[in-house]
Amino acid sequence: MKTCKLNQFLLLSLAFSSANLAYVAPAYAQLQNVIERQQLQQHPNLVNSFADIVSMRNAINHPGRFQTAFLNRQATVDKALEQPINVPFPKDAGGGYTHEVHKNNYRLMYEAGILFQITQQAKYAEFVKNILFEYAKLYPKLDLHPEVKSNNPGKLFWQGLNEAVWLVHTIQAYDYVYEFLSVDDRQIIEQGVLEPVALFLSEQSPQTFDKIHNHGTWATCAVGMTGYVLNKPDWVEKALYGLDKSGTGGFMRQLDELFSPNGYYNEGPYYQRYALMPFVTFAKAIQNNQPERQIFEYRDQILLKAINTTAQLSYNGLFFPINDAIKSKGIDTIELVHGIAIAYGISGDTGLLDIAKQQDKVILTGDGLKVASALDKELQTDYQFVTQAFGDGADGTEGAFVVLRSDSRNTASVATIKATSQGLGHGHFDKLGLSFYDKGAEILTDYGAARFLNVVAKFGGRYLPENDSYAQQTIAHNTLVVDQSSHFNGNTKVGNQHHPKVNLFANTENVKLVSASIDTAYSGIKLARTIALVTVADENIDWVVDLFKVTSLKQHQFDLAYHYDGDFIESNFKYKPNTEQLKPLGDNNGYQHLWLTAKGQPELNQPISQLTWLNQNGRFYTLSTVNHKNLEFLFTQTGANDPNFNLREDKAFIFRVNGQSAHQFVSILEAHGEYNPSKEFTLNSKSSIQSIRYEQQNNINLIYVKREDMSEFVIAYQNQLTKPQPFEINGKQYMLNHSAELFKIN
Amino acid sequence: MKTCKLNQFLLLSLAFSSANLAYVAPAYAQLQNVIERQQLQQHPNLVNSFADIVSMRNAINHPGRFQTAFLNRQATVDKALEQPINVPFPKDAGGGYTHEVHKNNYRLMYEAGILFQITQQAKYAEFVKNILFEYAKLYPKLDLHPEVKSNNPGKLFWQGLNEAVWLVHTIQAYDYVYEFLSVDDRQIIEQGVLEPVALFLSEQSPQTFDKIHNHGTWATCAVGMTGYVLNKPDWVEKALYGLDKSGTGGFMRQLDELFSPNGYYNEGPYYQRYALMPFVTFAKAIQNNQPERQIFEYRDQILLKAINTTAQLSYNGLFFPINDAIKSKGIDTIELVHGIAIAYGISGDTGLLDIAKQQDKVILTGDGLKVASALDKELQTDYQFVTQAFGDGADGTEGAFVVLRSDSRNTASVATIKATSQGLGHGHFDKLGLSFYDKGAEILTDYGAARFLNVVAKFGGRYLPENDSYAQQTIAHNTLVVDQSSHFNGNTKVGNQHHPKVNLFANTENVKLVSASIDTAYSGIKLARTIALVTVADENIDWVVDLFKVTSLKQHQFDLAYHYDGDFIESNFKYKPNTEQLKPLGDNNGYQHLWLTAKGQPELNQPISQLTWLNQNGRFYTLSTVNHKNLEFLFTQTGANDPNFNLREDKAFIFRVNGQSAHQFVSILEAHGEYNPSKEFTLNSKSSIQSIRYEQQNNINLIYVKREDMSEFVIAYQNQLTKPQPFEINGKQYMLNHSAELFKIN
Repeated sequence: MKTCKLNQFLLLSLAFSSANLAYVAPAYAQLQNVIERQQLQQHPNLVNSFADIVSMRNAINHPGRFQTAFLNRQATVDKALEQPINVPFPKDAGGGYTHEVHKNNYRLMYEAGILFQITQQAKYAEFVKNILFEYAKLYPKLDLHPEVKSNNPGKLFWQGLNEAVWLVHTIQAYDYVYEFLSVDDRQIIEQGVLEPVALFLSEQSPQTFDKIHNHGTWATCAVGMTGYVLNKPDWVEKALYGLDKSGTGGFMRQLDELFSPNGYYNEGPYYQRYALMPFVTFAKAIQNNQPERQIFEYRDQILLKAINTTAQLSYNGLFFPINDAIKSKGIDTIELVHGIAIAYGISGDTGLLDIAKQQDKVILTGDGLKVASALDKELQTDYQFVTQAFGDGADGTEGAFVVLRSDSRNTASVATIKATSQGLGHGHFDKLGLSFYDKGAEILTDYGAARFLNVVAKFGGRYLPENDSYAQQTIAHNTLVVDQSSHFNGNTKVGNQHHPKVNLFANTENVKLVSASIDTAYSGIKLARTIALVTVADENIDWVVDLFKVTSLKQHQFDLAYHYDGDFIESNFKYKPNTEQLKPLGDNNGYQHLWLTAKGQPELNQPISQLTWLNQNGRFYTLSTVNHKNLEFLFTQTGANDPNFNLREDKAFIFRVNGQSAHQFVSILEAHGEYNPSKEFTLNSKSSIQSIRYEQQNNINLIYVKREDMSEFVIAYQNQLTKPQPFEINGKQYMLNHSAELFKIN
Repeated sequence: MKTCKLNQFLLLSLAFSSANLAYVAPAYAQLQNVIERQQLQQHPNLVNSFADIVSMRNAINHPGRFQTAFLNRQATVDKALEQPINVPFPKDAGGGYTHEVHKNNYRLMYEAGILFQITQQAKYAEFVKNILFEYAKLYPKLDLHPEVKSNNPGKLFWQGLNEAVWLVHTIQAYDYVYEFLSVDDRQIIEQGVLEPVALFLSEQSPQTFDKIHNHGTWATCAVGMTGYVLNKPDWVEKALYGLDKSGTGGFMRQLDELFSPNGYYNEGPYYQRYALMPFVTFAKAIQNNQPERQIFEYRDQILLKAINTTAQLSYNGLFFPINDAIKSKGIDTIELVHGIAIAYGISGDTGLLDIAKQQDKVILTGDGLKVASALDKELQTDYQFVTQAFGDGADGTEGAFVVLRSDSRNTASVATIKATSQGLGHGHFDKLGLSFYDKGAEILTDYGAARFLNVVAKFGGRYLPENDSYAQQTIAHNTLVVDQSSHFNGNTKVGNQHHPKVNLFANTENVKLVSASIDTAYSGIKLARTIALVTVADENIDWVVDLFKVTSLKQHQFDLAYHYDGDFIESNFKYKPNTEQLKPLGDNNGYQHLWLTAKGQPELNQPISQLTWLNQNGRFYTLSTVNHKNLEFLFTQTGANDPNFNLREDKAFIFRVNGQSAHQFVSILEAHGEYNPSKEFTLNSKSSIQSIRYEQQNNINLIYVKREDMSEFVIAYQNQLTKPQPFEINGKQYMLNHSAELFKIN
């Protein structure tokens, strides 16, 4: 009888796969389960459906990316399985021992689960079962974690967030081994740990579960998927529509509110990629279990837009590091690997394969297999990075994060302008902040977050005190500070109530331009900035034009900062360096962290002041600004009042105007030349710009740029251009046909 | 008759190549020359023989690396040839306009010359002819260059060195087009420019031509090759044996003296790769013209050793940046591309192909073709980086540059110890200096040179004043400074007269060790350092053990500096940070450039003091040193007294002992853990080392290392071990069988 059943199983196996059968030897009762399960096809059915499993079982027998990834993963997991099971009593905060062990456990369960499905080797299921037995013993004993710091506490972990992530992985692992387990096994595990964790994350943590925030997304994802696996439709409903099922909380409301219509996430790309994971994971599970919900169609395909926008918000593989961002995070982050795979599975867009190829990671899912097979066939086409204003807010009207790109490559010249809303607690006070990227490198920099993720010695791996005292402050960004105080006085709540207005966005061949303004960052003061990326290869033009206008009724001090990466080369004005002593530039709002390294005034017999630096990418950058008698230049560098050496080197030029009620800074950053010490040549290390002048003709703004070779250009733009507008230069008539255009006038 | 000759030519062409004949249309007289030349096979015959040309003509018709390189080169040169010929009157220094134009001209002539040979298209020869006509007109008018700064003046260039490089390229170009030119053309060019330049470089610049120095090598190479092409055997003799042909100067003496027996070049790898070019170029020309000289066999194949040593003196593609070095220079430098190609042409060593593959550059020479074809066939094998003491000086006894490697990969753990002689004017005062590299990155750093090569705004692109005042000074290096003064009082002449002694070099499986000492760096003071690279993968051991002993009869201040790259993480002792004000650490000898950022004392209730940092490579590094009541720790950073912001950020820990006549610093640098913000985990951010102790038993040195997990190890070593030596620990007997060994004692 046993033999007969075994043969039946083997035949079924052969029908589904040609995996190595020598390894297949589960015990009888489990075999019975497996057979029923294959007939009913109920498990697994979260991110991977049973059809996905069948495809993967087949794919591992054919050479290619997927087989390679599978074999690597199997080797890693096999080695890990040699270690004894370790489910320690929770003790440590992020980065600490028990924290890392529990993180490792859920990863390992997840991977062992999928390996069980693909290989049908009992050892993987046994491992998941045994470790879950340990959790089922441990969990009922737990109170809140001893290191709880946030208002989203956990039990296994110091944060409920980690607890939710644990369940997101663990419920998938459980789903994979479900059919392997006896009814008694299931009862022990479900009652001992899965249900209690799900209840802890939902009923017992309503403040997080119903919150429209990425912590809420993880929680709803975890609980909703648990609802599918444990056949509790009520949990799925709560996950989708909130604990009271009214729709005021829950996953659907998160989909409505956390992304703008074009898929921008309020906290910026660093948190966007993190938030993405539970969104795409739960959505895929919904799609597999309840396709009638058409979750990927919801809100005009908002999830696909969010995935695509996450990829768009990157430069040379790394995310734009606005707000609290770890700067080394990029498109190869595992969350986006899942996102791209799922998006490709739905859309078949071959441009996504280009991103997948750069990610160079194959995941063991049905969509991962589709991506791997397509890359094996080299089906990828160039991903098109675009110039776009990513509207912020649920309806896309709360300002925008604007990305101006010279072309579609990921190493093109790119200016970004942060005219977004605050971005909640991880938001920085950097309204109208500018960043610039060129030839693969960050040129005008954003500090990102002050944090050593999970390094216990550095403030427990959490955000450092200097994140508040420096990284979030306005002076740490490339924007304007009034009277040495930060936007909204550095108050997040106030910041959350306001956002800049985007007045003009133009995308023409040679000029990509945005104008934005805000009058709430400082009481009674209006800030307005226009940034234009102007590129003409034939003319050697690679400029960022920057007009920053500040107006007030009272006199103030205005500081416009430019943080740069590179070696200072020269200025065209004299400055007084502080060679024998350094002192901080101020007492608070970030100024206390800046050493003042030099100070200078413009030479007023010259039309512009210029500062040149050389980036590691081998290109020179010159910042030229129109001179003014009230202008002075400060050179600064981080390091003051940093007793634990928590801050990185961050150098800046600050353009300062004092005792004025208004000022217009008119500047151009020019990318030029090449420094090639390997091939031993240097080209065009001097800026080509000789003068800059700004004027208005009626409603048309004109920026004149004259170069050393006497060629002269005008960038013209106008808000709300409804029909072509004429303007005149030196008696000659010109016509502005688009909102922003470049004219060669000499 | 014309038709007949043309047919004859075509037939000959077909015999030698299947190049695209549609392009072949030289004028009649030139055809006649070409035909004669192909029969006589006298030109070209410098780096490329005519047989090489024939191979290349064939190779460009077959897809592969060579064809690709050829087509790229041709496209570039074709574009350049569209520009008008430009031979300006010399005016600018390095990096300036006329300097770069003349550099570009010789490159272009060289490339057009070889393209003429390969394609047989007249336009390339025409170009070389026309530009040489211009030089023939210009050169007789020239006095010394107006910007002459060095004692090796030029006419076309500010330095005679550049003039020699110009001729090295130009004589090859002339050789390529020789047969194309009429007798009259040749006379104009040879008399107008080639002969005058050769005479200027030899007879008229005896101080350089006869100098045993890389400037002399370029000059002899240029003049010698000109001798071959212009059939002036006398010039060849002078190039080989000096102006008086006595052998006291010239190329052969340079071969005898500039390299040590294992191919180390006195000035270090940065200048070694530069010096290599004329050596291998001239040698190849000698080989082709006078194979009977067996130049590549000379001095036990010294040139092949020099080429190989240049590759060995690199880490992760970049040269060890000792002495005046531009740090971005690496094995892909064009000089080493030529070197590797020539070495491969002679030896057929497939390990060299591994280097060539990393270089990713194909040169249009016969040897370049051999390399390209071999790479097309994937014949490369792993290049073996080795642990080696590269003896310095003509007989290899003037100290050594010692490279200790954990394994043969180019990203292994590597410690280098600079126990070399001074290295002439580009040498730094860094006797017994240590550098450490790991996981692809520089961990204990060498500043290299303070220079922005060819950037006119930065001191004309020359070595900056800070090169003398900081980069060359002892405190800028990872070695010991007595009384805040540099080795040899910073006097190069004195430095040139002395060198350290290497007392022990051991290369065993787990311990690579060197002991070296010098008693002339400071009067009456002996410095002795032992560095051991200890690696045991199974035990998670990745250590650099560092014993620095200084002894004197009088009391002094001893500063042992460690310059590091990375973010400071923590110390296990308290320090007082200078948060509100920074001041320079000293007044001169490099100290004036260091801001003192913090100061601390060891906690004497602990056995060791520890300092941990995190490198960009994602690994933690902890420097542990045995405590002592007189010890203090200074944290420093460059930037003081640097009015032009010429210095890079360079951070250091300085271990200081004051008022002692002797001290032994006993320290270990441990590489540990992983910081992975992309995958969001951090492992082993804390050092595993708990205590370190040093003792001597008879002549055996023992360094005890106890770890947090209570495991304990001893590194034992003895100078001049002639037979196994016993020693005892806790009553247990051990035997030292090799000069240096690791023992696990607990």
